Amino acid sequence: MNPAEYFPNRRTIRRYSDREVSPTLIDRLLLAASHAPTLGNIQLYSAVITRDEEGKRLLSPAHFCQPQVTGAQVVITFCADLRRYTLWCREREADAGMDNLQSFIAATIDTIAFAQQFNTLAEMEGLGVCWLGTTTYNAREIAQTLHLPSLVIPLITLTVGYPAEEGVDVGRLPLEAIIHHETYTDYTPERIDSLYAEKEQRADSKAFVKENNVANLAQVFTTARYPRANNEAFSEKFAAFLRSALKG
Amino acid sequence: MNPAEYFPNRRTIRRYSDREVSPTLIDRLLLAASHAPTLGNIQLYSAVITRDEEGKRLLSPAHFCQPQVTGAQVVITFCADLRRYTLWCREREADAGMDNLQSFIAATIDTIAFAQQFNTLAEMEGLGVCWLGTTTYNAREIAQTLHLPSLVIPLITLTVGYPAEEGVDVGRLPLEAIIHHETYTDYTPERIDSLYAEKEQRADSKAFVKENNVANLAQVFTTARYPRANNEAFSEKFAAFLRSALKG
Repeated sequence: MNPAEYFPNRRTIRRYSDREVSPTLIDRLLLAASHAPTLGNIQLYSAVITRDEEGKRLLSPAHFCQPQVTGAQVVITFCADLRRYTLWCREREADAGMDNLQSFIAATIDTIAFAQQFNTLAEMEGLGVCWLGTTTYNAREIAQTLHLPSLVIPLITLTVGYPAEEGVDVGRLPLEAIIHHETYTDYTPERIDSLYAEKEQRADSKAFVKENNVANLAQVFTTARYPRANNEAFSEKFAAFLRSALKG
Repeated sequence: MNPAEYFPNRRTIRRYSDREVSPTLIDRLLLAASHAPTLGNIQLYSAVITRDEEGKRLLSPAHFCQPQVTGAQVVITFCADLRRYTLWCREREADAGMDNLQSFIAATIDTIAFAQQFNTLAEMEGLGVCWLGTTTYNAREIAQTLHLPSLVIPLITLTVGYPAEEGVDVGRLPLEAIIHHETYTDYTPERIDSLYAEKEQRADSKAFVKENNVANLAQVFTTARYPRANNEAFSEKFAAFLRSALKG
């Protein structure tokens, strides 16, 4: 196996078959994924597994009713978890001191490495996965639905099932766009043009531009998908949730 | 290959042989890793590759002079990069609107998924890797050393080389500690005792307790490794850096 040639075949999978995803397989994958690097070996994360139809239905609005939530066999909400460690410390007459930004960032790094490792293992077992970035938009609502107590912050949701579609190769920027040697080389307008050329010339990109009636692909992102007003409103919402969640 | 049985064999590797790590291998691994999930396919990250001895020497103090920085063939600083997308938008008469918390979190998720996928691929190619959580402690100093402009935030540093040690199996909490079914089950003192028992009874844990002259393992973390005063001081430092970095 040549992993460097293997993984580019991966695709986001949003439609799933009815084939059951065995609970013991998910357990085995999550346990294996927990061997991903974790800062100080503290494991500042939890995974909340939703299998019940009712649970998926309750989560759905927080993900703007994207059909993969109710359509997936398994929905897993990966959470930064500063609570378990804090409770352990409390039981041992120690002050965890984790109710702060630095600890939240450490937990976020732990959580996403764990989620990504789960994603890789799941795909290697033939499962299809979709990442829902809506989790931090509606973290408070998700926390309520999943009964997350303080010090537990939902970060990313993965919908999981056996694929009922092949998925689409959406492409990536060329390597030169994302690496820098020794120091950061800032992007000139000419380099921007060259690094984004392939992405902008894709047929699907051109279709998005037409559909949204805008001048170019960047404007698809800034008007339809991630407009400033939304980013700023969801920032304030998440900051407020984070402040309250960190009040142990 | 059974991935679920494969990856638990992974270990953090801090000591490296002199064997050269080919630049084309690193490029190939980073390119493959960029096919990890990325929110909206925007790829809000950059990797700064340090190979020069002088560069490693300059980075070393920001990582508290841990010997793996100057001892590794390659040091890679993975950064949340809101800049490249912002510059692309600017060239296309679009307002990126990425100078906010929500976008920073999205970039952090992208960056860590990318870093973790690189880690997995590197290990599958026989390389050893160590993650340095010191990156966000001294983000400002690292940004200065690597000439990171605004909207680029260093998050995690991976030291990479062929292993000169086997590494230690530091263990992980049992699966029941990190998963929850349908809703979050809070941890009672009894469950905490049971979930941390194996970790607390390890010989290395007992040695740490003795070395640090404290009552238990939790106190090793809260007094020697991650005391509240440090967490809070580094939080303020990182928050100040983040505010200035987001001022595009």
